[in-house]
Amino acid sequence: MKNFQVSKLYLVNPGPLDDECFIRAVHATDILDTAEIFTEFSDAVKDIDMLIATSSIETVSDKKHLRNPLFPAQLSQQLSQVSGSIGLVFGREDYGLLNPEIAQCDLMIKIPTSEAYPSLNLSHAVAVVLYELYTATTDMPKHRRPLDSMEKNILFDTFSELLDNISYPDHKKEKTQVMFKRMMGRALPSKWEYHTLMGVLKSASKKCEKQTKSSIDENST
Amino acid sequence: MKNFQVSKLYLVNPGPLDDECFIRAVHATDILDTAEIFTEFSDAVKDIDMLIATSSIETVSDKKHLRNPLFPAQLSQQLSQVSGSIGLVFGREDYGLLNPEIAQCDLMIKIPTSEAYPSLNLSHAVAVVLYELYTATTDMPKHRRPLDSMEKNILFDTFSELLDNISYPDHKKEKTQVMFKRMMGRALPSKWEYHTLMGVLKSASKKCEKQTKSSIDENST
Repeated sequence: MKNFQVSKLYLVNPGPLDDECFIRAVHATDILDTAEIFTEFSDAVKDIDMLIATSSIETVSDKKHLRNPLFPAQLSQQLSQVSGSIGLVFGREDYGLLNPEIAQCDLMIKIPTSEAYPSLNLSHAVAVVLYELYTATTDMPKHRRPLDSMEKNILFDTFSELLDNISYPDHKKEKTQVMFKRMMGRALPSKWEYHTLMGVLKSASKKCEKQTKSSIDENST
Repeated sequence: MKNFQVSKLYLVNPGPLDDECFIRAVHATDILDTAEIFTEFSDAVKDIDMLIATSSIETVSDKKHLRNPLFPAQLSQQLSQVSGSIGLVFGREDYGLLNPEIAQCDLMIKIPTSEAYPSLNLSHAVAVVLYELYTATTDMPKHRRPLDSMEKNILFDTFSELLDNISYPDHKKEKTQVMFKRMMGRALPSKWEYHTLMGVLKSASKKCEKQTKSSIDENST
């Protein structure tokens, strides 16, 4: 929960919150300290605007509306349009949520899993759902940006110069330039990667140019 | 791993694979049975075509290429273009992967997390990364399909009839019809939900129609 900026934990009839719980919470004991404990599910959820049930069981038949789920990624889309409080309801480790509990919820989600082993461990299910909602609602820092057109032109010209300076065969040149362009397109170099690469290409190019000149000089003497 | 259809586990200098490990694996003990154990990281990864390191630590400076990460969702995009074997490398629970280990990998990924508590528990990190790759590479069953145009027309006509039969004010009718259309567009009812809803609307409409007629009859007698 704390990894994904969720802080309000409601527990319905939990086991004892003993030392082991606090040891396992590591640096997130504040969530356990402020957890609210209820004896009735309906009391826990009564002030929540939108309730979302989670289940690993879905109905095969489309007719049974109760367990007709969305996937977490679809939920993220829906929630981006919703204001108010949202409650994610996770069931018991052994037999999940009961039908009357699911019926009180506005939506149901199911994490897509392998048919060979569909049931996720409770804590993994929580991690996956919170991860999905966190990434959908948080602006990701943009680590990569495409190079701007000036940077691109300088890079491609430098690469082209290098090809000239290694006496690259003329008939292959265009294809190789395109390949380099495509590779850079996929690699999306950062500003610093760009400068590092430019440094390498430029010094290689200059060295090759010098070499060509000196060998011409040698031959002419 | 088994939840997300991943079966090959390589362990480098693990603790003992004792009874507790097998109890915790629940229905996925086959993965432990066939796990391969290595003493050197480089031996474990030597036959893998594309190696992906995971870390909760990223560099602030763009200059340090080593820990310059992608996010899992970006990785999924990249891997969709890759054939061959892919290895996901997870580090120690306490201090993750060492720089020389990361340097042997082709890419590094970082799960986006809250700055207040960036470090995920190892098993949660594995669950999140495998979930992301599984959903990106597996065709999700399409639970919802938009209604086809015939179904839509019948549904909207039925709703419109209902409005008539409840003597809905003419000047509000068009707006309410559009609202209903939009709601259905967002709700994307399944085939059975459609039929269920049609049943409700039709019988309501008929009942209201009857009521109107009988009250006219009453008044005219």
